[in-house]
Amino acid sequence: MTNPAANVPLPPAVSVLGLGLIGGSLLRAAALHLPTDGWSPSEQTRAAAAADGYRVSATLDEAIERSAENNALIVLAAPVTAFDGLLRRIDAVAPHSRLTDVGSVKVAVADQVAGLCPSARYIGSHPMTGTQYSGWPAGSGGLFEGAAWVTCLDEDSDIEIWAEIAGLALTVGSRVVPADAPSHDAAVARISHLPHLLALALAQVADGGGALTAALAASSFADGTRVAGTRPELIRAMCEANRDALIDALNDVLGILGVARGSLASTGSLVKITETGYAANQRFRVHSSQLTDIELHADDDLVEQLLSVGLAGGHVVGLDNSGDHLLVRALYPAED
Amino acid sequence: MTNPAANVPLPPAVSVLGLGLIGGSLLRAAALHLPTDGWSPSEQTRAAAAADGYRVSATLDEAIERSAENNALIVLAAPVTAFDGLLRRIDAVAPHSRLTDVGSVKVAVADQVAGLCPSARYIGSHPMTGTQYSGWPAGSGGLFEGAAWVTCLDEDSDIEIWAEIAGLALTVGSRVVPADAPSHDAAVARISHLPHLLALALAQVADGGGALTAALAASSFADGTRVAGTRPELIRAMCEANRDALIDALNDVLGILGVARGSLASTGSLVKITETGYAANQRFRVHSSQLTDIELHADDDLVEQLLSVGLAGGHVVGLDNSGDHLLVRALYPAED
Repeated sequence: MTNPAANVPLPPAVSVLGLGLIGGSLLRAAALHLPTDGWSPSEQTRAAAAADGYRVSATLDEAIERSAENNALIVLAAPVTAFDGLLRRIDAVAPHSRLTDVGSVKVAVADQVAGLCPSARYIGSHPMTGTQYSGWPAGSGGLFEGAAWVTCLDEDSDIEIWAEIAGLALTVGSRVVPADAPSHDAAVARISHLPHLLALALAQVADGGGALTAALAASSFADGTRVAGTRPELIRAMCEANRDALIDALNDVLGILGVARGSLASTGSLVKITETGYAANQRFRVHSSQLTDIELHADDDLVEQLLSVGLAGGHVVGLDNSGDHLLVRALYPAED
Repeated sequence: MTNPAANVPLPPAVSVLGLGLIGGSLLRAAALHLPTDGWSPSEQTRAAAAADGYRVSATLDEAIERSAENNALIVLAAPVTAFDGLLRRIDAVAPHSRLTDVGSVKVAVADQVAGLCPSARYIGSHPMTGTQYSGWPAGSGGLFEGAAWVTCLDEDSDIEIWAEIAGLALTVGSRVVPADAPSHDAAVARISHLPHLLALALAQVADGGGALTAALAASSFADGTRVAGTRPELIRAMCEANRDALIDALNDVLGILGVARGSLASTGSLVKITETGYAANQRFRVHSSQLTDIELHADDDLVEQLLSVGLAGGHVVGLDNSGDHLLVRALYPAED
């Protein structure tokens, strides 16, 4: 694989349902490379996207019909709470659609798709990007550059659809992390959902200190509360949909902080939390990495091979389907 | 007061004991405006500071003797754990020194000064600035620009020394927040010490998720763990010295997270933590402010007037001692 961008598999077209920060950014980024169509339940958003030069469908059914005509990949980019209605219409209008979503939880969405739209050729995905802003005007075609884009796999997954979605993610600048849905949900509970709850709790504790406390807030407070400015309903939607994994993460953090509190009260020492936490933080910094090309043969266990990339902390940086086999270029973390 | 910088009270000279990030930065910043001398227990640091063109004393006693000759303000800029030894030598060599410190806790240091160096003319201070780096090479004369610099006051405080320290803080670019020591400690427990413990706990919970979790770490994780890279002994020194206030803050955060966990487990809802935390975070953003000049008269309760500035969330941005009275220009938060 000499030029990873030359023979990347891509869907014939992309249809984005929901044009907020992520959906609006994906419509902009995908439109540079392939035919696109977009739809939003908000007339104002549809008008804004159309005024910016993007093709927009007037109704949900029209968007789904167009996606079927174009053999398009449908991307559910609405809040997870709106998926139910979207899936019912897709099942009614074009039940065999190629389908993905960009929601931040994956087990719950996979269950929903299996229940409401069982004939869809579905691969869940999650681009790990965003800002504290939302809505069409906040979007940017560059939002996916350098982001980790999780693509979900299990033993029943259709590798052809997976390759198209992974190819789209690579084409808009992301690195692709294959993962099974429960492992994804456990991971994001720890590195995304829990940080939101900690930021909200810290803001509340600080606010309890009054005006002097606010006057002294410095960089450690600003860093620790940055995501507390996210709209509460967005935080609720992602955290509540990942209930079991988030309870595990909350149990862990309550345990660590409770032990630290007990140690501080009884002996005055914080040696355990400071040294264990510092070492854990250092382990997260990977200083070098290693490129490996993997040739996937149809008679091998393709899913297992792809999942092993993600489980090792690696990601896919190139795909080539020009030969007899799908070639996967992966980048793994390496010891210094 | 037309030009707040013209008649700012300043100490005749400054002697900085300890040349790490804060001390080294203060030596650089102060040297632009008045005579300075520095000392570090590390021969390597003394050599580095001297090579950069700063006057450095070879021994602690020499530094203290020079400060007495120059009527200098001594600044304790070593880790709080080294204050004991420094104070004993100051009491032996120059017991009536003008004295401040830049430690991040104030009640414990005031107690230490009262016990070990009772004749010193002491005002505690705390410039609320820093980076995750440490040592002389990490310092910068611009470190104090825009920072909140707390100056401590109680009913026995000497306003003349306070004005010199506040003037030094203004001169190096900080805004001055007058506060009593217990209120300072309660505030920094909430907006500095607790955020460090949350960052350490979050790093540990994330690390427990394995390599896939590390591969997915995104901006909310990076923000939430930024200060977990601080050297553990520095975090311990500041947190353990502020034990009682930090236990209060830990109790609050454990309560908030525990309630959220219970609600998520029993009803699946995170409405309380998301809405209360979001509102608290919004309150911390002050969008406008209001300038007020205060004329301090010797027969008024000067300390109470200054403390009222900090308690209202305001800070001192100008000082003028050219007339009969000390003029204080204060900036208060204002409603939009």
